[in-house]
Amino acid sequence: MIVDCHGHYTTAPQALWDWRKRQVAEKSISEKQLKISDDEIRDSLESNQLRIQRERGSDITFFSPRAGSMEHHVGDAAVSAQWSRVQNDLIKRVCTLYPKNFAPVCMLPQSPGVSPANCVEELERCADMGFIGCNLNPDPSGGWWKEVPLTDKWWYPVYEKMVELDMPAMVHVSSSCNPAFHFTGAHYINADTTAFMQLIQGDLFKDFPQLKLVIPHGGGAVPYHWGRYRGLAQDMKKPLLKDHLLKNVYFDTCVYHQPGIDLLLKVIPLENILFASEMVGAVRGIDPETGQYFDDTRRYIDSSKLSAADKQRIFEGNAKKVYSRWRI
Amino acid sequence: MIVDCHGHYTTAPQALWDWRKRQVAEKSISEKQLKISDDEIRDSLESNQLRIQRERGSDITFFSPRAGSMEHHVGDAAVSAQWSRVQNDLIKRVCTLYPKNFAPVCMLPQSPGVSPANCVEELERCADMGFIGCNLNPDPSGGWWKEVPLTDKWWYPVYEKMVELDMPAMVHVSSSCNPAFHFTGAHYINADTTAFMQLIQGDLFKDFPQLKLVIPHGGGAVPYHWGRYRGLAQDMKKPLLKDHLLKNVYFDTCVYHQPGIDLLLKVIPLENILFASEMVGAVRGIDPETGQYFDDTRRYIDSSKLSAADKQRIFEGNAKKVYSRWRI
Repeated sequence: MIVDCHGHYTTAPQALWDWRKRQVAEKSISEKQLKISDDEIRDSLESNQLRIQRERGSDITFFSPRAGSMEHHVGDAAVSAQWSRVQNDLIKRVCTLYPKNFAPVCMLPQSPGVSPANCVEELERCADMGFIGCNLNPDPSGGWWKEVPLTDKWWYPVYEKMVELDMPAMVHVSSSCNPAFHFTGAHYINADTTAFMQLIQGDLFKDFPQLKLVIPHGGGAVPYHWGRYRGLAQDMKKPLLKDHLLKNVYFDTCVYHQPGIDLLLKVIPLENILFASEMVGAVRGIDPETGQYFDDTRRYIDSSKLSAADKQRIFEGNAKKVYSRWRI
Repeated sequence: MIVDCHGHYTTAPQALWDWRKRQVAEKSISEKQLKISDDEIRDSLESNQLRIQRERGSDITFFSPRAGSMEHHVGDAAVSAQWSRVQNDLIKRVCTLYPKNFAPVCMLPQSPGVSPANCVEELERCADMGFIGCNLNPDPSGGWWKEVPLTDKWWYPVYEKMVELDMPAMVHVSSSCNPAFHFTGAHYINADTTAFMQLIQGDLFKDFPQLKLVIPHGGGAVPYHWGRYRGLAQDMKKPLLKDHLLKNVYFDTCVYHQPGIDLLLKVIPLENILFASEMVGAVRGIDPETGQYFDDTRRYIDSSKLSAADKQRIFEGNAKKVYSRWRI
């Protein structure tokens, strides 16, 4: 079985984005005013994610709202709470329609400067609906990086609930309002790197030994600079990274060329790597050097030198361990 | 000959940092109040950079003020101008004392929100003193990223002067005031990634075909995500990266483990890679996995599968081409 732990509903029906526009503009729109039929949901998936699953031979995608659309910086906490409910409810409908193809991952109603304690209620609601994980945004300001590091006690209320519910988080930012940062080309990758470095500096997993965090996009710059991070941790008198972080931190395989995947598989312990493609995501074209889609990451794992058993850990086994609420 | 294109005067005498403290506190201190003897300069180098050059077998370092100390966000443009003169004059003294070991690279008197046109005078002054390159900070706000992207016409006055003087720039941020970003572990690497993505989005080298930019720290996350960047450029209808950027953009080898260097050498054309170690820099310890210093990057190049001729291009030939003002 091939489990893709990182997929977003980038192809959601236009009615969702229209409702969002009205929500932001009018500030009082009922969730009931969003009308999307089951057929519209099916249409949005059959020609996109489901087709791609079939073509590439993946079985199930852990599916969350479009990352760029979380927009925690837009409106206040109430706007964010309503938008989270709407987006998560839609993800739940997707997974109810296609329970074999998608498992639900929620966004959280974060809002800049608002305690993440405000996420607890939505996290519980989603857990009750069978969600298996959440996306946690380390920068709800959308590219201005105004929140304290992830190791600060500010974040603890959401970690406590995640641990209680056995819910891992993918550390994933949303869109960038900062013209310096292209969202998928700079902000996403920077956020991955930043989050990992914050975790090195702190001692979060001493307080939360059961907490599980997934760093997407192959861990940003981290595996490429693994020597730098091992060296910085050592200079800071931190334990070896395998002891300091790797019982709790995982990387996905959203790296869109063979040499990048080969490096990831070489430097990061295999038990810390989860298969993912982020489809339909940041890069949609065909690589002229290979004739294959850039984001067809299964090919890179298949072509790696790993044994069949090791490949299976990355494709399936590790996801089962990390997303332990997931039941096939 | 082995040319290290990226070294900072991290070990400058304490008198420099004391003068800086007074400059920031008192706001009117004369440059003449900085007293550093030639012997103090020799002492600061003999036991550090010069010793390391000898031990590792490198010949010359392109040497600039400590990156973290540029602090363009501190004080106003006048403070920055004075500090740049002081730092660059000290670099010049180093290179006069040890002309075979160091070639001078200057910092610029940038200041947040102030037109980079204010850097022209110092750039000319340094060129007259024999400087061979400069460091350009894409984020003079120190981690808040308030400046427009490097492709904006805002930056053109400094590019015009760089081209006129045949002076390449290393795109290098300074310290981070943003608690989210550890300076050497997140801010530096993010800046490299961010700058490259800005260059993809724009069309800077159409206007400046002679401009040369070096992205340090192995290009941040870029080579690891080379497929992502090729794919994003393609989705944006940009030319192939080799045509769009690689006639003007170079990467250094400040990547502190063998697999990272191997990836860099594999995906980036060899003519775009310049040897560097950043010593004495971000990571100072010995890698317990190899028994060698993390930042002894020569070993990684030596151990790579490149031919002797290709190694020599990275160690020497490419630096001569890019830093064409440099004369041995």
